[in-house]
Amino acid sequence: MTEGITVRRLRGGDREGWQRLWDQYLRFYRAELPPETSDATFARLCEPDGDLVGLLAVNGDGRAVGLAHLVFHPSTWTETPYCYLEDLFVDPASRGSGVANRLIDMVYESARELGAGRVYWTTQQFNGAARSLYDTVAHLTSFVVYEHEF
Amino acid sequence: MTEGITVRRLRGGDREGWQRLWDQYLRFYRAELPPETSDATFARLCEPDGDLVGLLAVNGDGRAVGLAHLVFHPSTWTETPYCYLEDLFVDPASRGSGVANRLIDMVYESARELGAGRVYWTTQQFNGAARSLYDTVAHLTSFVVYEHEF
Amino acid sequence: MTEGITVRRLRGGDREGWQRLWDQYLRFYRAELPPETSDATFARLCEPDGDLVGLLAVNGDGRAVGLAHLVFHPSTWTETPYCYLEDLFVDPASRGSGVANRLIDMVYESARELGAGRVYWTTQQFNGAARSLYDTVAHLTSFVVYEHEF
Amino acid sequence: MTEGITVRRLRGGDREGWQRLWDQYLRFYRAELPPETSDATFARLCEPDGDLVGLLAVNGDGRAVGLAHLVFHPSTWTETPYCYLEDLFVDPASRGSGVANRLIDMVYESARELGAGRVYWTTQQFNGAARSLYDTVAHLTSFVVYEHEF
Repeated sequence: MTEGITVRRLRGGDREGWQRLWDQYLRFYRAELPPETSDATFARLCEPDGDLVGLLAVNGDGRAVGLAHLVFHPSTWTETPYCYLEDLFVDPASRGSGVANRLIDMVYESARELGAGRVYWTTQQFNGAARSLYDTVAHLTSFVVYEHEF
Repeated sequence: MTEGITVRRLRGGDREGWQRLWDQYLRFYRAELPPETSDATFARLCEPDGDLVGLLAVNGDGRAVGLAHLVFHPSTWTETPYCYLEDLFVDPASRGSGVANRLIDMVYESARELGAGRVYWTTQQFNGAARSLYDTVAHLTSFVVYEHEF
Repeated sequence: MTEGITVRRLRGGDREGWQRLWDQYLRFYRAELPPETSDATFARLCEPDGDLVGLLAVNGDGRAVGLAHLVFHPSTWTETPYCYLEDLFVDPASRGSGVANRLIDMVYESARELGAGRVYWTTQQFNGAARSLYDTVAHLTSFVVYEHEF
Repeated sequence: MTEGITVRRLRGGDREGWQRLWDQYLRFYRAELPPETSDATFARLCEPDGDLVGLLAVNGDGRAVGLAHLVFHPSTWTETPYCYLEDLFVDPASRGSGVANRLIDMVYESARELGAGRVYWTTQQFNGAARSLYDTVAHLTSFVVYEHEF
């Protein structure tokens, strides 16, 4: 079903397609970011050796249809990094055809390549569409998340 | 109640007291780590300018009674880092006297000093003792955590 | 609303209609089964005196529009069997007209006939559409489910 | 820590030690069973080739310190049985020494021997003591449990 879909590292020339997906993703979370934050994020996601790794799913016509953003960070529990899948999004028009699965496969591959022994992410407990997929590729944990913002 | 309690940065000479708390903390999670992982973690927590920050609560007798471990990492949503409170532990003999609150105050202060706009952590949904405290100093989010280990 | 709907025991001649529903149900859970597993399951569901009981909802045109699969098994808490409702599915085109309620009524009737004192089932905590129905015909318990696969 | 602990199949001569644990376990769930139900359950747990399998943890003095009861039942999703761990209990005086882990190891071994590809169980979402152990030996699922009793 995902014939013609390629998942690859994000690069400088992808800005337009990436921005379209990123805007939809932020709207889903009812969030707005200053344009300079998106600029900085896009630049960091394209850096070849940074802590952030951007992945883009592109269809046979060269159109960006999905994105995944990884953050690698140290942990006190292990000498290898953890890989945090901070953002995952598939264009609604391309859903149901395996794009998310292809992105997650590539997330796992990238995490392994970069030495991480664990990939994790969070999702709203009521996001059934996402969780019904996550239940098939990862394990739910017993953890809930607390936060404090300044 | 916390008279005589000081919370300060972890340093090389704290190994013995820190190890005692760390071992109890790991036992709580029924986890065992290779000694070299604890060695590496302790060293990184003591580095003055790294991504990991160790905090130690010490009582009037100079005894270590609590610890907090912070991980600073970038986020795609902001240009400033996030502060992840990965570990928090108070010696059972010193609980109920405000040590955890003092540690969290210092976590927030350290996060601000290091430019983070958000501190977050996770806890098991059934850890009532911890959550009754967290509810007073932070906000529960709607997020659950998925993970995949290699 | 469910005029013309009949719920009855599954039988050998129902294979085609049953398979159509079963395939949709598995797709909902993003699951794929080997064809020989579906063959074996169908055969067992049709056996008159086995541990598995298949129920089929058929509309006035004789079209299969819903299924329910029951597993009867012993329990250490009671001398009578428990009835586990393992699968329940209604064709999306036939939803909202009471087919699920009719199926559940028949589940209860079958369970009673076969001597079970308790019917139970599980559902994903985020499946709001299903849970809003279940809340009207059964009781939520405080139980969560752990699993280990070999 | 579990030196001297043996986990083995339950047998007819274990009735007294088993009954003591079973009574404590039922009290934990605030349940009362008719004596004849316990009689029947014990008998079925001791049968060599039935659907119920009883396991008993015995210490070096021959004292019963833990039990596990397995129910094997068919599933529509697989041709091999599922193994439902219906009851698990460790004498409070013997907790914290690995008895539960030893029982679960033997549950997995028994399940494999009897051809099950999956072991599952349920626990109250607020049972922190149990879940902190389960989180280390199995995976939490997204499922909640509904029930209807006649």
